Amino acid sequence: MKKLIEPRTLKGFRDYLPAAMIPREQLIETAKSVYRSYGFSPIDTPALEYTEILTGKGGEESDKQMFRFEQGGRDVAMRFDLTVPFARFAAQNINELGIPFKRYHVGTVWRGERPQKGRYREFVQCDFDTIGTTSNSADIETLFIIHDLMVKIGFSEFTIRINNRMILNGLLEILGLQAQSAEVLRALDKLPKIGPEAVIKEMRGQGRLTQEQAEKVISLTTAQGSTATILNSLEQQLSGNACGEQGVQYLREIFQSVERAGIPGERIVLDPSIARGLDYYTGTIYETFLNQLPGIGSVCSGGRYDNLAELFTTQALPGVGASLGLDRLLAAMQELNLLQEVSTPAPILVTQMDKKYTPEYLRLARNLRLNGLNVEVYPDTTAIKKQFKYANRHGFKIVIVAGADEFEKQEWQVKELQTGTQTAVKEVALLEFVQGLLTSESAK
Amino acid sequence: MKKLIEPRTLKGFRDYLPAAMIPREQLIETAKSVYRSYGFSPIDTPALEYTEILTGKGGEESDKQMFRFEQGGRDVAMRFDLTVPFARFAAQNINELGIPFKRYHVGTVWRGERPQKGRYREFVQCDFDTIGTTSNSADIETLFIIHDLMVKIGFSEFTIRINNRMILNGLLEILGLQAQSAEVLRALDKLPKIGPEAVIKEMRGQGRLTQEQAEKVISLTTAQGSTATILNSLEQQLSGNACGEQGVQYLREIFQSVERAGIPGERIVLDPSIARGLDYYTGTIYETFLNQLPGIGSVCSGGRYDNLAELFTTQALPGVGASLGLDRLLAAMQELNLLQEVSTPAPILVTQMDKKYTPEYLRLARNLRLNGLNVEVYPDTTAIKKQFKYANRHGFKIVIVAGADEFEKQEWQVKELQTGTQTAVKEVALLEFVQGLLTSESAK
Repeated sequence: MKKLIEPRTLKGFRDYLPAAMIPREQLIETAKSVYRSYGFSPIDTPALEYTEILTGKGGEESDKQMFRFEQGGRDVAMRFDLTVPFARFAAQNINELGIPFKRYHVGTVWRGERPQKGRYREFVQCDFDTIGTTSNSADIETLFIIHDLMVKIGFSEFTIRINNRMILNGLLEILGLQAQSAEVLRALDKLPKIGPEAVIKEMRGQGRLTQEQAEKVISLTTAQGSTATILNSLEQQLSGNACGEQGVQYLREIFQSVERAGIPGERIVLDPSIARGLDYYTGTIYETFLNQLPGIGSVCSGGRYDNLAELFTTQALPGVGASLGLDRLLAAMQELNLLQEVSTPAPILVTQMDKKYTPEYLRLARNLRLNGLNVEVYPDTTAIKKQFKYANRHGFKIVIVAGADEFEKQEWQVKELQTGTQTAVKEVALLEFVQGLLTSESAK
Repeated sequence: MKKLIEPRTLKGFRDYLPAAMIPREQLIETAKSVYRSYGFSPIDTPALEYTEILTGKGGEESDKQMFRFEQGGRDVAMRFDLTVPFARFAAQNINELGIPFKRYHVGTVWRGERPQKGRYREFVQCDFDTIGTTSNSADIETLFIIHDLMVKIGFSEFTIRINNRMILNGLLEILGLQAQSAEVLRALDKLPKIGPEAVIKEMRGQGRLTQEQAEKVISLTTAQGSTATILNSLEQQLSGNACGEQGVQYLREIFQSVERAGIPGERIVLDPSIARGLDYYTGTIYETFLNQLPGIGSVCSGGRYDNLAELFTTQALPGVGASLGLDRLLAAMQELNLLQEVSTPAPILVTQMDKKYTPEYLRLARNLRLNGLNVEVYPDTTAIKKQFKYANRHGFKIVIVAGADEFEKQEWQVKELQTGTQTAVKEVALLEFVQGLLTSESAK
């Protein structure tokens, strides 16, 4: 006998079985449909790039984690995010694309991280960006998209926290602290964890700020109250500084448009403390939290940047965009019982009792499909009990059965699995009957 | 000044710009929706596998073409098809999945082939399979799926050619030529190119068949006439041979179900000459041709096999499936003018004339979206001419404009780009008006 090869996946990699893949595919399709509804176009880039394209953009950590190898004498690597390939793509194709350019990109990326619970070496990113414009209109739409996406996925209790990096930059300009910007940001990042006192201490130490300067930074970033109150307070503190005032103005415009569009105000929160990393973002910033599960972190984040592709072109490509955290969202949906537990995309199973009638089973199922229903036919004429077991195991809602008796009477037996109710239905009435069952099912 | 990195893709790899990606994504979504309608579930497997999983399955050619490298002391490779990973997946997960198991898999694969026109080193495969059953019912549904998929994509003039490998195997059994099966198949493969005389010559030479044996093979595989005539002729020639008779019976059942389901008979053709490769398929075989472009070859092919995962498990997993040739189909659709030439997924562009009204433009667009329309807002308030140029360039159908005059009259100007017709519409009537334009547009 031949020796078998042990079937196994690489460490940090995983198979997606139907029960995991069905909601995943639905979520991706929902995201794409929302992106498209805002006029964003799909693009794709290769999984492999010249290593020189990818290195040095994501920082040393990313460089070390790259899957890199030699191929036909070329130094190549697998993409570790979609942003660097997008920068290369934009630099290479912008003349053909024209600006403004709005794209979404759903793609797999690879990182040789140490695998741990919930972290994999292969995962999917789901980004959208508008490039080639500095207009705040694009920032506002980015917020709208995040909002509409969350609603379309099925959430109503969520908070999008926004800020603008120009606000803190304005204060640092006023205080003459532009050179210490990195230290200030690094300290502020720890605010939720260590509290204002410790942040002030770190700013005084590492950042060489005075107590008064540090307190001003804390005062600005922890302003409390209604959106109007915070905006007024920020305006006061930044008075006379062009950069800071512009930041406040952009935020004001965002809240005006939110209100005008009828987006529930409590879902959009101004949070002057958020910064999202040290150097990439330069304007509006977005983070999205589920009110019931704030601990899992932001499920959709992004911001405005000054220049996407400076490594590849002298053409400045300012833009704004965000990325949906697919794995985080799916974990949250599972925890909140928002996922149907099924391992079939079809709610209806047509069983086969007698091989003689196979053409009838196949015909019936196909007719239902032509009317928009997803219908599976059990392929074998094994014991009907086994076919029902299959139906229960996979989460079908309705099982259709017919043997010699039914074919004589020209009827089909329709069984609802949840209630056990079984009804004999003439074929001419079957479509409407089954549609009715599925509608009442989904209304539950 | 920093030296720029030249933005470029690897040889044999390509970017997908919106104009190419939009129809591609639509085609994939159509395929998925048809697969799902038949109860097939999505799965995914890693892009990277242990090399030992992938080698030796696709033949020496595939082994040489694999992107293979060492990663953390492991010998790994990028998948070169979806069949071998599916075999590994099935062997590893079949207990959890249960049988029968129906899956589809849309995924990228990589092959280090010499790049040539229309051939890339990275491409997407689009497979579906039913495993764990030998029932001919699954074979019939495979045919139905190919048919319904072609129709849903937009084709009406196509031919699915089917055959069953048991027919030729039956004849070879009768003639005592099982040992020469490979030589016979290799010669028959050349039938369309070199004709029957040359095939007979090759079978006599390489295959060591007698003239009479070779003529019998040719007679069987080139039977002409109606489906019924061919089936009867095959039955006669294979009379008394269990394997051959079973093959004919399976084909009869397929044509019965096709007729019963109301699938146009001329689209399904029995072709006893097709074999599709030497050793993988063992039963029904499928090839699909576009009647207007037969020269591009089969756009959807597949067949029945005895054992999917014999390298990985002792459990026999018979199955049947097929694969949609995405790139070939897209090329054909382009040639047949079946593709819309657009680089936006939205038919409607809302322009911005005055920054003061940005909240109104954004609100209007979002309201149209909430009613199911795809609408883009031009982000800047640049010259209206420039915004129209953008609209024309990307293939928008409708442009919506409003300045101070319109806001005073509470109207929007709606311009159809193709005709140039411009109509002032009150906002309360706008949705219906625009929907009407788009419906008449798509009816053209």
